[in-house]
Amino acid sequence: MGHGRCFASRTRNIKSTVSKTENLYERGMHTCHRGPQLGNSWGTRGRAASGCSPGRSPAGAAVTPVLGSTRMAAGLDSLRGSLERHLPPAELAEAERILYGEAARPLDLPFAALSTAAERRFELQGYAFGAEPEQLRQPRIVRVGLIQNKIPLPTNAPVAEQVTALHKRIEEIVEVAAMCGVNVICFQEVWTMPFAFCTRERLPWTEFAESAEEGPTARFCQESTYYMEGDRGHPVFQTQFGKIAVNICFGRHHPLNWLMYSLNGAEIIFNPSATIGKLSESMWPIEARNAAIANHCFTCAINRVGTEVYPNPFTSGDGGDAHRDFGYFYGSSYVAAPDGSRTPGLSRTQDGLLVAEMDLNLCRQVGDKWNFKMTGRYEMYARKLAAAVQPDFVPNVIKE
Amino acid sequence: MGHGRCFASRTRNIKSTVSKTENLYERGMHTCHRGPQLGNSWGTRGRAASGCSPGRSPAGAAVTPVLGSTRMAAGLDSLRGSLERHLPPAELAEAERILYGEAARPLDLPFAALSTAAERRFELQGYAFGAEPEQLRQPRIVRVGLIQNKIPLPTNAPVAEQVTALHKRIEEIVEVAAMCGVNVICFQEVWTMPFAFCTRERLPWTEFAESAEEGPTARFCQESTYYMEGDRGHPVFQTQFGKIAVNICFGRHHPLNWLMYSLNGAEIIFNPSATIGKLSESMWPIEARNAAIANHCFTCAINRVGTEVYPNPFTSGDGGDAHRDFGYFYGSSYVAAPDGSRTPGLSRTQDGLLVAEMDLNLCRQVGDKWNFKMTGRYEMYARKLAAAVQPDFVPNVIKE
Repeated sequence: MGHGRCFASRTRNIKSTVSKTENLYERGMHTCHRGPQLGNSWGTRGRAASGCSPGRSPAGAAVTPVLGSTRMAAGLDSLRGSLERHLPPAELAEAERILYGEAARPLDLPFAALSTAAERRFELQGYAFGAEPEQLRQPRIVRVGLIQNKIPLPTNAPVAEQVTALHKRIEEIVEVAAMCGVNVICFQEVWTMPFAFCTRERLPWTEFAESAEEGPTARFCQESTYYMEGDRGHPVFQTQFGKIAVNICFGRHHPLNWLMYSLNGAEIIFNPSATIGKLSESMWPIEARNAAIANHCFTCAINRVGTEVYPNPFTSGDGGDAHRDFGYFYGSSYVAAPDGSRTPGLSRTQDGLLVAEMDLNLCRQVGDKWNFKMTGRYEMYARKLAAAVQPDFVPNVIKE
Repeated sequence: MGHGRCFASRTRNIKSTVSKTENLYERGMHTCHRGPQLGNSWGTRGRAASGCSPGRSPAGAAVTPVLGSTRMAAGLDSLRGSLERHLPPAELAEAERILYGEAARPLDLPFAALSTAAERRFELQGYAFGAEPEQLRQPRIVRVGLIQNKIPLPTNAPVAEQVTALHKRIEEIVEVAAMCGVNVICFQEVWTMPFAFCTRERLPWTEFAESAEEGPTARFCQESTYYMEGDRGHPVFQTQFGKIAVNICFGRHHPLNWLMYSLNGAEIIFNPSATIGKLSESMWPIEARNAAIANHCFTCAINRVGTEVYPNPFTSGDGGDAHRDFGYFYGSSYVAAPDGSRTPGLSRTQDGLLVAEMDLNLCRQVGDKWNFKMTGRYEMYARKLAAAVQPDFVPNVIKE
């Protein structure tokens, strides 16, 4: 990763135990070529039911339980679901406009995808961001898929079984993404294992490291992959589905990190993450969305769900007693558009696939309207940043 | 302003018509010494009623009208009010935690302040952000006041009458701020006049320009004032109430602009704004809050309310017909804390005063926890930004 020293040190620990120097820990991006492109078998509404999404039904009826559907620590299943159940229609429309903006409309998804998602017990939502028609460019429609998931097996199951179970679960979801015509898919951070960094243990977690070229996950994905080292800057990948970048986890906290990808031309920036409610839930809806606004691009924020319990107790450096789980991963994956609008979040508690169709033309259209790239005083910022890191930097402070 | 070329050109037009080269257009900050400090006469709950806040009552009962209380263009009076009316208590608590975080607690405000606000028909809310006790520093408690207001007279009233009416209205609100023990107050952008830039006319709007040293508004405020030119960088003012900065209007769109104030040590950054729903409402809750998170500081976002109708029709460069108002200013002023939590917004439709008490120690505490200043790779960013503004810049793009 271009940013993330904290990452670099984490992955360095992992790397030292594997013979190949490359690993999959920071990988999440795949272009997705396989699977039927069921582009003309649209069925029911895109923002639709799944068997495991409490609080939502196809008809929008109230369903219980709402709070703590998997465990009390998780809280509300989704903010959107709560608003839908309780707000009168006119106020709901206004609340959704204030919270999510106006651009995203529900996407019609194939009936087969919706029913398969329900059978397989994960949430499926779909939204589309449009753009104005242009004379000289055709619309540049891309569909991305964001997947959030729990670990299917407990953390003390054999390593190989855990990996296989994750592959199986992801395959179930990826198949549905393919039914939905998804072009680019992004998994959550460290999706091939529990988020075991919190334990600060080495074994058995380092055994999840794989060769990025020949490991089982590389074979499972059977496609070209994109991943990044800590010293390679902020590369942008020019694909047939637009210019994409991956800003992993902690990198989302730094507005300048998003900007670096944008300066390299990124139109979609994915942010695979693994973060818990106690730590960051008040930041989650803000950071990736702000990056979409500030950089005239789409951003995709993905967080895992569930609680992952480890065999050995560990502390969290917060003065609390040792415990065996890091906390509740609150999901809430979403896509934000350059005009500041966003999709609602996936469930806080359930596995899910969010399909977002986007016309990439919107990036330049919003840029032409707001001109942040033109009005950004980058020369001055560069000068001041260079000065600010010098030991003799004197802040510009005016005293009373 | 350190940023905002768009600003510089606007104010330059104004300046050319006044004999003094300084003007008040970009001024919003005042330290507030006058008025009783009623520190020990706390009365009812801080987030409390006013006579003109539809949809909220002291008991939290449902009050109509809700939508378009002043005119339909305005929409919902406040998101918070809608949630309070309709969500069951457990879901409301969860929704508020997800939307606003956990740090801000309602502040007990003096009964006299609450009743005066109700009499004078403006909303009054109060919240407090705490911090952990420390051994070597006492709490550094500051109370800021954010004022949002409509223009009290139509735009075609005589200039002097408009200014006097604004002074009178602001005085009514500032007196209540003083009752609430507010230390630093921030008005909305261009608070001494209608937001007439949208008309692109000169007269009579340039007549609102005043000498910042001897003009009627300077005399009205009777205090030292802080304001900034477009070429003075990002100064931070070290006051007895902490290190404060002012990032005006458009400057909020640039994460680097907030960062510049932060590098100079700002603990509270005010953002006086004047913006309308059609343009920016989906960005409003995001940008200042993201800046508080990214920079480990408090941010205060202030927007005016109401629709301002001008004598002459004008166009907005959007292909639409000429019209006589810029749009609906949606208020929603709020304070965000470094931990990502925030206060609810003031009304979308009504004049209001938001009192926010903050322990400035929270800034360093959150910084010590998240370390964005330590993990920010500013040297690299400075280098890359310097490169990106060169004509021979080659983006880091990897092709398929």
